[in-house]
Amino acid sequence: MTDQLIKGFASTSGDDYQLNTVSFIRGAAITYPEVEIASRRLDGTMFRYTYRDAYRRIQQLANALTTLGIKPGDRVGVMEWNTHRYWELYQAISGIGAVLLQVNLRISGDDKIYVVNHSKPVLMVVNESLLPLIEPIADRLTTVKGYIVITDNAMDQVSTRLNPVCSYEDMLAVEKPVYDWPMIDETSAYAACYTTGTTGKPKGVYYSHRCIYLHTITMAMTLSMSNRDVILQIVPMFHCHGWGLFFSACAIGAKLVFPGMYTAEKLDGLVDLMISEKVTVTAGAPAIFLPMLHYLRSLPDKPKFNNLRMLSGATEPPLAMMKGFSEFGADVVHVYGATETTPLATVNLPKLSMADWPEENRWDFRKRQGLTLCGLEIKIVDAERNELPRDGESAGEILIRGPWITRSYYNDTRNEGAFMDGYWRSGDAGYIDRNGYLKVSDRFKDIIKSGGEWISSIDLENAIMAHPAVIEAAVAGIEHPKWQERPLALVVIRKDMKGSITQSDILGFISPKFAKWQLPDKVLFVDEIPKTSVGKFSKKDVRAKYKDFYRES
Amino acid sequence: MTDQLIKGFASTSGDDYQLNTVSFIRGAAITYPEVEIASRRLDGTMFRYTYRDAYRRIQQLANALTTLGIKPGDRVGVMEWNTHRYWELYQAISGIGAVLLQVNLRISGDDKIYVVNHSKPVLMVVNESLLPLIEPIADRLTTVKGYIVITDNAMDQVSTRLNPVCSYEDMLAVEKPVYDWPMIDETSAYAACYTTGTTGKPKGVYYSHRCIYLHTITMAMTLSMSNRDVILQIVPMFHCHGWGLFFSACAIGAKLVFPGMYTAEKLDGLVDLMISEKVTVTAGAPAIFLPMLHYLRSLPDKPKFNNLRMLSGATEPPLAMMKGFSEFGADVVHVYGATETTPLATVNLPKLSMADWPEENRWDFRKRQGLTLCGLEIKIVDAERNELPRDGESAGEILIRGPWITRSYYNDTRNEGAFMDGYWRSGDAGYIDRNGYLKVSDRFKDIIKSGGEWISSIDLENAIMAHPAVIEAAVAGIEHPKWQERPLALVVIRKDMKGSITQSDILGFISPKFAKWQLPDKVLFVDEIPKTSVGKFSKKDVRAKYKDFYRES
Repeated sequence: MTDQLIKGFASTSGDDYQLNTVSFIRGAAITYPEVEIASRRLDGTMFRYTYRDAYRRIQQLANALTTLGIKPGDRVGVMEWNTHRYWELYQAISGIGAVLLQVNLRISGDDKIYVVNHSKPVLMVVNESLLPLIEPIADRLTTVKGYIVITDNAMDQVSTRLNPVCSYEDMLAVEKPVYDWPMIDETSAYAACYTTGTTGKPKGVYYSHRCIYLHTITMAMTLSMSNRDVILQIVPMFHCHGWGLFFSACAIGAKLVFPGMYTAEKLDGLVDLMISEKVTVTAGAPAIFLPMLHYLRSLPDKPKFNNLRMLSGATEPPLAMMKGFSEFGADVVHVYGATETTPLATVNLPKLSMADWPEENRWDFRKRQGLTLCGLEIKIVDAERNELPRDGESAGEILIRGPWITRSYYNDTRNEGAFMDGYWRSGDAGYIDRNGYLKVSDRFKDIIKSGGEWISSIDLENAIMAHPAVIEAAVAGIEHPKWQERPLALVVIRKDMKGSITQSDILGFISPKFAKWQLPDKVLFVDEIPKTSVGKFSKKDVRAKYKDFYRES
Repeated sequence: MTDQLIKGFASTSGDDYQLNTVSFIRGAAITYPEVEIASRRLDGTMFRYTYRDAYRRIQQLANALTTLGIKPGDRVGVMEWNTHRYWELYQAISGIGAVLLQVNLRISGDDKIYVVNHSKPVLMVVNESLLPLIEPIADRLTTVKGYIVITDNAMDQVSTRLNPVCSYEDMLAVEKPVYDWPMIDETSAYAACYTTGTTGKPKGVYYSHRCIYLHTITMAMTLSMSNRDVILQIVPMFHCHGWGLFFSACAIGAKLVFPGMYTAEKLDGLVDLMISEKVTVTAGAPAIFLPMLHYLRSLPDKPKFNNLRMLSGATEPPLAMMKGFSEFGADVVHVYGATETTPLATVNLPKLSMADWPEENRWDFRKRQGLTLCGLEIKIVDAERNELPRDGESAGEILIRGPWITRSYYNDTRNEGAFMDGYWRSGDAGYIDRNGYLKVSDRFKDIIKSGGEWISSIDLENAIMAHPAVIEAAVAGIEHPKWQERPLALVVIRKDMKGSITQSDILGFISPKFAKWQLPDKVLFVDEIPKTSVGKFSKKDVRAKYKDFYRES
């Protein structure tokens, strides 16, 4: 599609009717008033209500925010676990035309201060259990005029030095459960999320009503979500609005389950909820799903899920994990996206035409990033910005554009280079095959450029990590006097097998899957691999430490 | 929602990216290139190709239209059966920014002339078999500068006095299969359809790109359509773009089946297609589905459909028909809408919460018009325009608004009274129950107003028609000196039972379902009931003929 915008013949349609977030919950309250929302309290007990009751509380909340003086365009920061109250805040804050600022609980105090002062909210809503995260920095939040505390306790039992402060429930209790929603220009921001880049300060993405509306119904359509589904909100609601799963639930009248607080170290509660509430759709990442699978396997009575789809993002799902869940009746669906893509850009759906493929072929395809969502455009470009064919071979940088793809970062000097011709530059390298599946081969900056060809560091790492003696492996491109770069492998060997594994063992193990020139010139056995704050391999550190390795040898 | 439009904080989303029809076929060609489209030729043989090949032809067609001088905003009239070529025209005409004018094959020549001259197309595309419909009126189509004939024959074998004229296939053959689509302002019209009102000239509805885009994905989402579905296009593509089913198919990569030409008198070909192509989704009306059921029952080998959903519009589906199809594994899904609603406004989906209801209760609900589609607002108002509660009792006029609801008729003096506060006035009377289901009790003007209460003529008719001796029955409100109006029933009795059925038989049969004051004062046995040109009861004629009936008696 060209960038040329043309105007045709005038329509007679209701084109001025704006796409607003509030239409989802308002519709659900009318068409699915009886459907349940289950929310786990911090003490482990369950709170349950219905879309009908929730909509009454959301209207009370809208009145309460208005009473506090929150106006259209104002930002309201939220620090909360995955609860029904966070969900109520999403509906009411955006419903009155204000913006919900998602404050990531896991970033440093300095980054929290940066995000809040960059977004300039007038109000912060904080769960009582998270007061220790906000109180030490409250003095430095320059625009915040007051605080609301989410608690099941009476306010006089809450000890806090935040001021002025009131309780979420006290505030709702005095308000009427009816609110006359305005119609909001759909290009207005409904919520904001800041990226957690590995370099520099977080960057602000301000999602419009139009953006989340189209993402919501396209997501529900693509995943065949229906009112027969039960949706568990695992992705943190402070991270890219929990991938918007709870909005799709409203749009199709599905039961919603909120797990409250959970930690990656103790995930048995999530699995127990999945079993007891008969969950059919959830979303997360291998870092969460792997320990859940271990817990599942430890159960004396093996559960059998019914049509459970587990959307898995962040990294390529390990094949063993996908196969493991399939034994329990769960389908791991790989999805691809980022904060800038709201986040769904591709979803790995199997095709009817694959039914008679050999099983391993089908698994190989299920690991790919998947099919482009209806409504988006993804193209692969070379270094000169030329579009490459979708032939399963031509690899280049992945560019994405469409109604829910970010066009700029809010008030930021780093916009140049991040966007191109209306497309967002993903920073990932990959290709699209003739079946339409996107395959990400590497982060663009981690691709190894060797003698004019590319070598995928991720493919090499995954192949080496499949060796039974290997705990983990990182491969990086190191400067080379003749070939520009050559791969170097860092490998951590299991304690009980240290010393018994050689470079030839590793290279021999992976050589059937690679051309000879793609194999690492050297395998270094190390005790650990440098990692970033979120646990990913720090290729930057690896490259820095070994930058003269091939020059010297 | 109030009419107050507010603007909030600026977003960073790609809000200027326009919703365009072409994104569906362009996306399908990339993500589902291998999926088949099957189209039945007029001679009964099948033409088959794929989304990949179809997209090449659609780009050729776009180039051909451009070569002919068709510009953005131009209208192009089409007279064609339900074929893959009609579908190609929908994609290419709207893709270049022009407007596809749907010319209804069934309206009179005079109405065709009115519609064409009102819309002012520069070009007409006509199937060879339909030349007898266009040639006699061609001289009176004042804006048409040329004709394209759709035919499988060589053009020198086509006899026509249209001029200038060329062949669809010849035109495509010389063009390149690549077209650089413009981005079209989404409020531009993509297609036009004229209503076939029972009174007055047809009224023009010009659907925007935005309107059909949102309708398409909401329809696919609501009906859980997926790439596992096989979609048969029964609804004529000249009637409200065949309900947009073929667009939803592209959006989710489903196989499409076009039945070509068929008539209500001979529907066995449709059923044979449904069986041989393993159809899972189709749409039509009881007038088509009833004879299809009879044919199904006549088959020596009873077919069993797999997850077949048959969307049924126009009138309330008879219970016997719904139960009949369920024996073959098909689910009749009642839907409600009109040309002005693109058309889907409600869909009757069963709810999980009904699973333990008594069976007859569930059937009673499945007959209702159903649940409001996500994104629309439906309200019931009394004569003073006050909104009535959704309590299953408060009946009034049904008003609808939303992104795919018409806001006015094109260039028409009849807009006043047809719209109200941004809502389209359906002219239907009904209520919404506490489960969220809309129930249409009558056309507003056919409601019988008796002593300050309302009586539904449709409910009385359906009850009488359930009597085994009755072929058909119409009930109308006739002026009454004391009660304002009272119901009068016209009943046609089966030939072999004529004379053996009395008024008390009929009233006794239906009396368990009605209050005494709701029963017709009089049952008249007649040989036939006056009908409109599209086969509906003409209540207007009944009322006119019997207007003094109760005054005189």
